[in-house]
Amino acid sequence: KMSGNSNAQKYYIDEIFTAAANGDVEAITKGYNMLSISPDVTDKMGWTPLMCAARNGHVNVMGFLLQQGADPKHMNKSGQTALDVASFWNQTGSVNFLNGFLKPNKSPVMEVVHYFGFSALDRQSYQRSDENEMKKAMRMENAKYVVFADLQLLVSNDAVTGKSQNVVYLTWGEIEKYLSIVDHDLIFLGVGNIDKGLLVRETHHAQLNDSPYFAVNFKKVSRDDEFSPEKYNGSFTDKDNRRLMMMLQKNESGLVAQARSVLAWHERYNFCPTCGNETIMKDFGYKRLCISESCTTHKGAHNTSFPRTDPVVIILVASKDGSKCLLGRQSRFPRGMYSCIAGFMEPGESIEDAARREVFEESGVKVGQVEYHSSQPWPFPSNIMIGLIGRAVCDDINVDKVELEDARWFDKPEVAKAILEGFGRKEGLVVPPHTAIAHHLIKTWVQRNSNSNL
Amino acid sequence: KMSGNSNAQKYYIDEIFTAAANGDVEAITKGYNMLSISPDVTDKMGWTPLMCAARNGHVNVMGFLLQQGADPKHMNKSGQTALDVASFWNQTGSVNFLNGFLKPNKSPVMEVVHYFGFSALDRQSYQRSDENEMKKAMRMENAKYVVFADLQLLVSNDAVTGKSQNVVYLTWGEIEKYLSIVDHDLIFLGVGNIDKGLLVRETHHAQLNDSPYFAVNFKKVSRDDEFSPEKYNGSFTDKDNRRLMMMLQKNESGLVAQARSVLAWHERYNFCPTCGNETIMKDFGYKRLCISESCTTHKGAHNTSFPRTDPVVIILVASKDGSKCLLGRQSRFPRGMYSCIAGFMEPGESIEDAARREVFEESGVKVGQVEYHSSQPWPFPSNIMIGLIGRAVCDDINVDKVELEDARWFDKPEVAKAILEGFGRKEGLVVPPHTAIAHHLIKTWVQRNSNSNL
Repeated sequence: KMSGNSNAQKYYIDEIFTAAANGDVEAITKGYNMLSISPDVTDKMGWTPLMCAARNGHVNVMGFLLQQGADPKHMNKSGQTALDVASFWNQTGSVNFLNGFLKPNKSPVMEVVHYFGFSALDRQSYQRSDENEMKKAMRMENAKYVVFADLQLLVSNDAVTGKSQNVVYLTWGEIEKYLSIVDHDLIFLGVGNIDKGLLVRETHHAQLNDSPYFAVNFKKVSRDDEFSPEKYNGSFTDKDNRRLMMMLQKNESGLVAQARSVLAWHERYNFCPTCGNETIMKDFGYKRLCISESCTTHKGAHNTSFPRTDPVVIILVASKDGSKCLLGRQSRFPRGMYSCIAGFMEPGESIEDAARREVFEESGVKVGQVEYHSSQPWPFPSNIMIGLIGRAVCDDINVDKVELEDARWFDKPEVAKAILEGFGRKEGLVVPPHTAIAHHLIKTWVQRNSNSNL
Repeated sequence: KMSGNSNAQKYYIDEIFTAAANGDVEAITKGYNMLSISPDVTDKMGWTPLMCAARNGHVNVMGFLLQQGADPKHMNKSGQTALDVASFWNQTGSVNFLNGFLKPNKSPVMEVVHYFGFSALDRQSYQRSDENEMKKAMRMENAKYVVFADLQLLVSNDAVTGKSQNVVYLTWGEIEKYLSIVDHDLIFLGVGNIDKGLLVRETHHAQLNDSPYFAVNFKKVSRDDEFSPEKYNGSFTDKDNRRLMMMLQKNESGLVAQARSVLAWHERYNFCPTCGNETIMKDFGYKRLCISESCTTHKGAHNTSFPRTDPVVIILVASKDGSKCLLGRQSRFPRGMYSCIAGFMEPGESIEDAARREVFEESGVKVGQVEYHSSQPWPFPSNIMIGLIGRAVCDDINVDKVELEDARWFDKPEVAKAILEGFGRKEGLVVPPHTAIAHHLIKTWVQRNSNSNL
């Protein structure tokens, strides 16, 4: 295939766009055969060949392009997908074809894997209570230790340069000497192979010879004293800045979320909430036991003995007519940034009702239909963000100034522009970065066409 | 309209079934005009007129019946819906028509309101910290008090007869005298009108003149002493039996879930988990504060200060080929009963990954695609059940005998029969009752047709 010769390349790209607009499958096949380019190559308006074909009703070309892996949800610079283009130009054949492709009967629903949600380890919960096996695993040559000090993560020094980040893993040989001299919590994470970049759902659980992973949180370590991060060409993330913990490779984010959430629980649950006596860690991090034998928490399973996970609802609300979405701004947000409405669930609520309540409390907007989108673990300290998309039944805004600085309706082209220009945008609306579930909720709404109910 | 004359009625019902099978819209219209019967009237095989029309491809009759409110998800005694019947008889026109009706572009997704999830009150969280307003509300004539003793609910005496149940509400005049003599927790629930039987999403929050609702939990009350339930023609539900709390009117179940969950939290969190000192209730039930001023929980928002809600995943797993579903049995279940696999989420997990992990841990079955269905609050003590439907990628069963007594694949006709025959079934598979989210997950799977991916 051709590469490097930019004039010839430009010629064939033009041919591809022309062929797409004309419905010439033979010519478009030839164009792609000559070049090593994405099926979603764009022109200066951000149009893809799929959009050109959809604009002119050429279902044959669309079939070819989708087979090549063209993304039907790609947006042009006006925030339109191929389906939006087809609808605008009344190309019923294209609309039906794309709808059929986007909502097939048999293809699996794509599950969004969010940052902090990349689950690469088999947690092997049955191992946790087997102290002998665990102690053996700790000493294995391929055992890996993730290190925290006061819940701040040890990352490689490239972090400082602002580049994408890696966790520093220590070996048993490196970690052992500190365990006897620095006060710490040590927990088991699971077994797997982070380097493979595969989800546990893809590997279908641990393989022989995979590494056991552990996490250690050193408490009140004086940082240039016993444990010196410099020795490992690393630094601890800053207490007041979560930025570095948000710049990890995605395949390491889930491991860090698990480790930090469980370790934060041990920081906060040194005493029994039911009787006030001390508690001790059990099961390599997944249980705490009250030392008072008369405490009622010893009878039956008692939730205070197990890690706490706080469910948070986060919702993109579309306006009554579907053309706008509701975003709110907290005063601590970066300049220009607005995000989805979010809040903690309360006892005795369904997920959908919690979302309706939060939106009403914070913005005054009344929400009807609510649909689940995806979920993201959030380790500050231990939340599960439940992402939803909803539709307003009454658009009137009445902002609760204690919770929000502002809440507004934004129209689709404006939001599409904010997504395309990214988090670093200098003026106008700024939406949260890819690492936040809010980004994906907003993007999903923008990509939905006018036929969608939400 | 006709009623009481059973011979004539039988004649017109026969006419309706014949007309449906023949595609005679005029005759079927006439039949329904003569009778006051459901569009889902069934014959002795459990077939509805819609099924007869679908069987023979009469889209005109199907349109008429659906317009009359016929339920396309109704099952006959073989567990088939109209769509299943149409598919079996290769009636492509009927299949397309029903698919179009079942998956329309614009109609709202129906949200399942589960037992304990009926949210009729506007919680008015902003009121909770306003002690003066709250004290005024407590003394209002239309204020209503839900009463617990040791977390057991006061219900009307009809409970004992096994009939559907009502909460006993006390007035300020009745409750006031006990508050000074019996140790108790008192919390605010919200404002609304339970009797209306409307969800807060339907009323769109409180109306003027609606009642404020409170809940009181009397601690260690000797039951025939200060507070005597007999005075109010009521009884407390039994400590070891949740049955009566599951027999409430649906519109009262959400109020009870909210009250019991929050009150149970106060039972368990009398001490600060971070420093071990005592805590006190604030904000009429929605916060606890450590009495030690030096405690770190006073700095910033600290999750230990707020009610705990534990997320639980519960999943119906379909087999790889879609024909069977996985159900498990705990030894404490009633005879014959199997249910969906469930378990607590762990920190740092997405909802979908937690479900895959639980199924693998308890049954050895490996799950691929997972789809959200609905959620149900569960007040024992304060869970949120997150209902999912998933598809196995590997069907091999390997039961964890610590967690489950048994786990098996059940085929669709068997499960359909169990649903149709109800919870009281004497032999064969028994599925959980309507009050459990598991029932609805199982039913949804049975009702899905063979074209569905899950």
